[in-house]
Amino acid sequence: MDQEAVMARLDAQAIETPSWAFGNTGSRFKTFPLPGAARSVWEKIEDAAEVHRQTGIAPRVALHIPWDRVDDPAALGRFAASRGIGIGAINPNLFQDDDYRLGSLTHPQAAVRAKAAAHLEECIAIMKATGSTDLSLWFADGTNYAGQDDFRARRRRLRGGLEACAALLPKGARMLIEYKFFEPAFYYTDLADWGAALAHARAIGPQAAVLVDLGHHAQGVNIESIVAVLLDEGKLGGFHFNARRYADDDLIVGSVNPLELFLIYAELVAAEADADTGTAACARTVSYMIDQSFNIEEKIEGMILSVLNCQEAYAKALLIDRAALAAAQEAGDVLGAHRIVMEAFRTDVRPLLAGWRRRRNLPEDPVMAHRDGSYLREIRRDRGTAAAASGYGD
Amino acid sequence: MDQEAVMARLDAQAIETPSWAFGNTGSRFKTFPLPGAARSVWEKIEDAAEVHRQTGIAPRVALHIPWDRVDDPAALGRFAASRGIGIGAINPNLFQDDDYRLGSLTHPQAAVRAKAAAHLEECIAIMKATGSTDLSLWFADGTNYAGQDDFRARRRRLRGGLEACAALLPKGARMLIEYKFFEPAFYYTDLADWGAALAHARAIGPQAAVLVDLGHHAQGVNIESIVAVLLDEGKLGGFHFNARRYADDDLIVGSVNPLELFLIYAELVAAEADADTGTAACARTVSYMIDQSFNIEEKIEGMILSVLNCQEAYAKALLIDRAALAAAQEAGDVLGAHRIVMEAFRTDVRPLLAGWRRRRNLPEDPVMAHRDGSYLREIRRDRGTAAAASGYGD
Amino acid sequence: MDQEAVMARLDAQAIETPSWAFGNTGSRFKTFPLPGAARSVWEKIEDAAEVHRQTGIAPRVALHIPWDRVDDPAALGRFAASRGIGIGAINPNLFQDDDYRLGSLTHPQAAVRAKAAAHLEECIAIMKATGSTDLSLWFADGTNYAGQDDFRARRRRLRGGLEACAALLPKGARMLIEYKFFEPAFYYTDLADWGAALAHARAIGPQAAVLVDLGHHAQGVNIESIVAVLLDEGKLGGFHFNARRYADDDLIVGSVNPLELFLIYAELVAAEADADTGTAACARTVSYMIDQSFNIEEKIEGMILSVLNCQEAYAKALLIDRAALAAAQEAGDVLGAHRIVMEAFRTDVRPLLAGWRRRRNLPEDPVMAHRDGSYLREIRRDRGTAAAASGYGD
Amino acid sequence: MDQEAVMARLDAQAIETPSWAFGNTGSRFKTFPLPGAARSVWEKIEDAAEVHRQTGIAPRVALHIPWDRVDDPAALGRFAASRGIGIGAINPNLFQDDDYRLGSLTHPQAAVRAKAAAHLEECIAIMKATGSTDLSLWFADGTNYAGQDDFRARRRRLRGGLEACAALLPKGARMLIEYKFFEPAFYYTDLADWGAALAHARAIGPQAAVLVDLGHHAQGVNIESIVAVLLDEGKLGGFHFNARRYADDDLIVGSVNPLELFLIYAELVAAEADADTGTAACARTVSYMIDQSFNIEEKIEGMILSVLNCQEAYAKALLIDRAALAAAQEAGDVLGAHRIVMEAFRTDVRPLLAGWRRRRNLPEDPVMAHRDGSYLREIRRDRGTAAAASGYGD
Repeated sequence: MDQEAVMARLDAQAIETPSWAFGNTGSRFKTFPLPGAARSVWEKIEDAAEVHRQTGIAPRVALHIPWDRVDDPAALGRFAASRGIGIGAINPNLFQDDDYRLGSLTHPQAAVRAKAAAHLEECIAIMKATGSTDLSLWFADGTNYAGQDDFRARRRRLRGGLEACAALLPKGARMLIEYKFFEPAFYYTDLADWGAALAHARAIGPQAAVLVDLGHHAQGVNIESIVAVLLDEGKLGGFHFNARRYADDDLIVGSVNPLELFLIYAELVAAEADADTGTAACARTVSYMIDQSFNIEEKIEGMILSVLNCQEAYAKALLIDRAALAAAQEAGDVLGAHRIVMEAFRTDVRPLLAGWRRRRNLPEDPVMAHRDGSYLREIRRDRGTAAAASGYGD
Repeated sequence: MDQEAVMARLDAQAIETPSWAFGNTGSRFKTFPLPGAARSVWEKIEDAAEVHRQTGIAPRVALHIPWDRVDDPAALGRFAASRGIGIGAINPNLFQDDDYRLGSLTHPQAAVRAKAAAHLEECIAIMKATGSTDLSLWFADGTNYAGQDDFRARRRRLRGGLEACAALLPKGARMLIEYKFFEPAFYYTDLADWGAALAHARAIGPQAAVLVDLGHHAQGVNIESIVAVLLDEGKLGGFHFNARRYADDDLIVGSVNPLELFLIYAELVAAEADADTGTAACARTVSYMIDQSFNIEEKIEGMILSVLNCQEAYAKALLIDRAALAAAQEAGDVLGAHRIVMEAFRTDVRPLLAGWRRRRNLPEDPVMAHRDGSYLREIRRDRGTAAAASGYGD
Repeated sequence: MDQEAVMARLDAQAIETPSWAFGNTGSRFKTFPLPGAARSVWEKIEDAAEVHRQTGIAPRVALHIPWDRVDDPAALGRFAASRGIGIGAINPNLFQDDDYRLGSLTHPQAAVRAKAAAHLEECIAIMKATGSTDLSLWFADGTNYAGQDDFRARRRRLRGGLEACAALLPKGARMLIEYKFFEPAFYYTDLADWGAALAHARAIGPQAAVLVDLGHHAQGVNIESIVAVLLDEGKLGGFHFNARRYADDDLIVGSVNPLELFLIYAELVAAEADADTGTAACARTVSYMIDQSFNIEEKIEGMILSVLNCQEAYAKALLIDRAALAAAQEAGDVLGAHRIVMEAFRTDVRPLLAGWRRRRNLPEDPVMAHRDGSYLREIRRDRGTAAAASGYGD
Repeated sequence: MDQEAVMARLDAQAIETPSWAFGNTGSRFKTFPLPGAARSVWEKIEDAAEVHRQTGIAPRVALHIPWDRVDDPAALGRFAASRGIGIGAINPNLFQDDDYRLGSLTHPQAAVRAKAAAHLEECIAIMKATGSTDLSLWFADGTNYAGQDDFRARRRRLRGGLEACAALLPKGARMLIEYKFFEPAFYYTDLADWGAALAHARAIGPQAAVLVDLGHHAQGVNIESIVAVLLDEGKLGGFHFNARRYADDDLIVGSVNPLELFLIYAELVAAEADADTGTAACARTVSYMIDQSFNIEEKIEGMILSVLNCQEAYAKALLIDRAALAAAQEAGDVLGAHRIVMEAFRTDVRPLLAGWRRRRNLPEDPVMAHRDGSYLREIRRDRGTAAAASGYGD
């Protein structure tokens, strides 16, 4: 791919940031409040706009309801637009109400299931008001003890709830079904892996697709191959990017194994090419979203770093010599094919990306521009340090 | 369930043993030859018959081709029948030929794929000759290095090979598609999880179902819930029972976590009941097979122990008070429901099973009967200690 | 071991319960408040007394400072004594103050280290006031990103802090050093495994020993063998019992793999016997403590169940035929030795334990006695449902 | 560090290659014979010399006894010297004799332990004959079933065997004690982690140190911090470099997570600096060895790649701005410190290393030089394709 083609692809890249990462979050042990952390959805949107201002590729912010609930969602959309960004996915919360102790759409009691369904309906209304086209569904549903509930019964309840929800989606909107290996459930999770999510997405039809969160797999799982399978099935809907070593660590994207992030992008780049020829067409409509929860680090800087790491991985993936790779694979040249991929990974794309930023009138070093800029200074001064609740022991 | 009903269910239980477990097998480091280990398929069948003689619930033996290839497979079936057992699943070997270094049905070269397809055709012919109705497919296919081959291209080659194979199956026969987390491939495995197997089985149709090997999952995976999902999808085809703590350890069934084995049987017992009412009908046709590879232990005794551990788990699962469990689940009584399941697990079913054996004129303690019996003494005397190659299977 | 000897050993068993398990706790996503949950240290002690009343083997409660800080700790000790229980280990909290964001004793800044040291000194004062002899040390210290801090520098800071703390311990008191694989740190944990804890305990001397929390290991780790090594090193100080499948799940003891719990007790029983002959003498002074955090289940009932599961595992371990086992091991009889251990595990010890309870005038079924008793009814009525904070998103 | 200093450090780097990687090896399922694979220790040494010829930093080859046993070991040393390389560590084999089914130094029977001890003595004699100074000890010892043997008894037997072996070591020679999480034992491994190895090394004294094999840890373990601890303890003896995603995959170094390899080297570079000031002095005597087992890839090329990946990681680690890093760590600047480390990792050191090679008259691209060179062509022609046994090592 020539330099101009790479630049054009970089121009088109867009990473959605999550509103919840800009407020104080923590572990079950402690939430450490940081100076300047956002205290409201309006401040979160301001922070998301700062990330976009510095990076140029973060034009949307995802919302989480009820954390980001306001009286007039349309006004929220206009506020975001005034700051230069749009509203991305709407994320319902089906885990933080006392009623959801034993599940939401999977709950043994019909009344709780109905409450969950009503919340989904509210979120769809917010989609309409804000122009969002993605309903991003994560269910904390599961059980902690053998025998606690009936797996198949829960599965049928979930299916029914998803079908009813899909019927309410506006035309052109999608339902992204996320899976997670464990947490907060510790014995069984209703949507524990991509196979579970795909089975529901298939049954529901074209409005449903699967959302891959990089932190939601068992140890050792080859995520890039799951991405490839979902592309092949036409059911890859989107990503929640972050990094993990142990559990759902929610660390900065690419901070644990940058090679893995690059290999995921390598699959996406290949599928984008194939989409032109008719297969893996869903590669055209993938939603690239970050989902992180900062425990100890500066939030906006951490988010800028995550966005940049996605950009770097994408840029490197664009540099893979695809024709040479296909030839080596065809020839069964194991190490030759591996080398072609690794040489792209080895490339230092910082100069390339600095050039792209100059063309776009963006700061060459977005992290330092943010560190040294007025925005950070002002929010620290104006917001102070919010008191933070903690979920453990108090 | 009353005692007679339990006895009747125990009467119907059948566990298939694998021919390959009776010969010398080992790790990549060493195969320790044991005195009396079977040296031919004929001796393996004799050993499988001994397991059935002592336990009464192991009436079939699975074959592995080419390890168990003979000139006249029908004669093999008659020989087995003369020893009181039948021929179970036929297991092709698509990993031990030099040509399969980069894959079998997924290989980049058409000639190797054709060779693999021809081997499957040979196995189907053996099915016909021996009356076997299960083609049990495990693919070692995968890659060791990023970039080595194209995930989606391999997937399409595999799909094509499976479809062609399915078309050759005799009427009423099934193709069981096994998945495995890793090994021998260490970067990517073409059929790495149940989702991958199910997608193929769905595409192929009613002749195809999924085979669950207890040792083929990532750490922490809740296997009983996968069993439940496959039952709900009507696609649970069979099991390869064994135990694991680390990788595909191939240890004696139930030796690592007997609670897990019991919980798997609890799902199967529940589905058998539901099958009477029209759902989870595939619970009626599940093939229960053992797949083990003994490294250091006595082989026939190890197999008897595996069979008995399955029987014990099944007996305990039959004792679960289903009505009370459903009521507790419905009421959201987390610990009450858990207790009902655990009380069944706590029950010492050795007296119950000894009673069942007496009724069937079986030895009350099959392990000691085998240890003290003439069969073991004779094979040790007659067979001696075979020289053993390093590795697995032959 | 004859029945009377088993009864005598059961008489001597003591499991310490943790005060923090009786209040509302949760995951980072949500704390579900339960009716009747304890709202103060006084109520926690009442609940711990209920567990002891029903089970007869939970005579002490561990405290956590500052959660259980009171003006007059000695009065707390007297209050506990009036309820029939004693004060067990004192657990400092070095993770919930804003200053500990980057560590406590390992923090790069001396001022924070001094603050942590002062808190340890306060806890030692509480030990003296309450008669506690165990200082139970868990450090959340670690880092989230490569490069964040210097491993060896942190190690030396920790060593210094531990040494200073040990110098303050009253005569006869011990410092138990706990380790944890991960969480809340997600890149590096300063005390990540038993080897790390043992190295410090060795350097500090006889006052220090290692504390094993069953939930704090990587997947697949053989915990019973770590117990054996620590016994052999004379450095096993105590346990935090709970169960885990994924991370530090803090589930009811024995609910994930009861065989593992039994095998741990099997090591302890063997060491108790050896302690009589001079080795593994630390088996005599092991502190058996539960550490759990209930998310969705009834707290007191869950604690009773955990205590009973420890009792059951111990009882089964006492039934192992040690002489036969040693003979089989000596003879290299792999499956024979395994069978001897498993036959003890298979035994249904419920009748034995019911007999023991009758002799002690305890309810035969402690769980049902608690469920049906007046205590639970009264605390639900009197305490109501406390409002619960949550650590995630608000 | 200025460029000349970096060059000097690169000049001093030395990576030892393992003889066994040049012959045909495989998994338990299959060993795929490759054209040109070495058929004898003489050919293995020739191949090791080729790796050194192309890379300039692989000046020694490790031997494995009995695979590399010859009548006159001194002649082997002279042969190696004539090819431009030296003899590195001697690796005894205590797992491939029929007698070692239940252990070697840990075996319940004294006769087997004596046999193992005699083999160690033979290896020490070979050390003396070849001038090797490292005895590299890996024990496959462990058990497959609960109860099979007594943990503490095995530990004491192992301790005795190690002590006796240490007493035989020539002056100045070392015993490197390797640990491994699992395999071939699947329930319990006698030396399962660094803590187990360190305890023995401490007891034995200055002649013993710990060997870290990158593939021998549980999932998620932070290896760079173990390296730091062993450096701090003065007990880091050496490495077995390779890569793993699942088990002991024995893949090309750096092929799974190059960041991890770099972070390990970052610890070593830091310790080398500290060694000048008196701490972590063992950093000066670390033996850098590769341990791999190729299944499907070209062996010599794979080894060259492994060596080069070590060089690349070391070069990047040398580029870390240590003063800036220390300042950021001191200031608690989490993301600033992380960035300093990651910027070094991001650097494309291929030009730097090409420059270093030119200065040393080495091929700028060692992989292509080997691919296109006469050596590969000739061994393929002369050696043909050896018949390969299943399994590992011979």
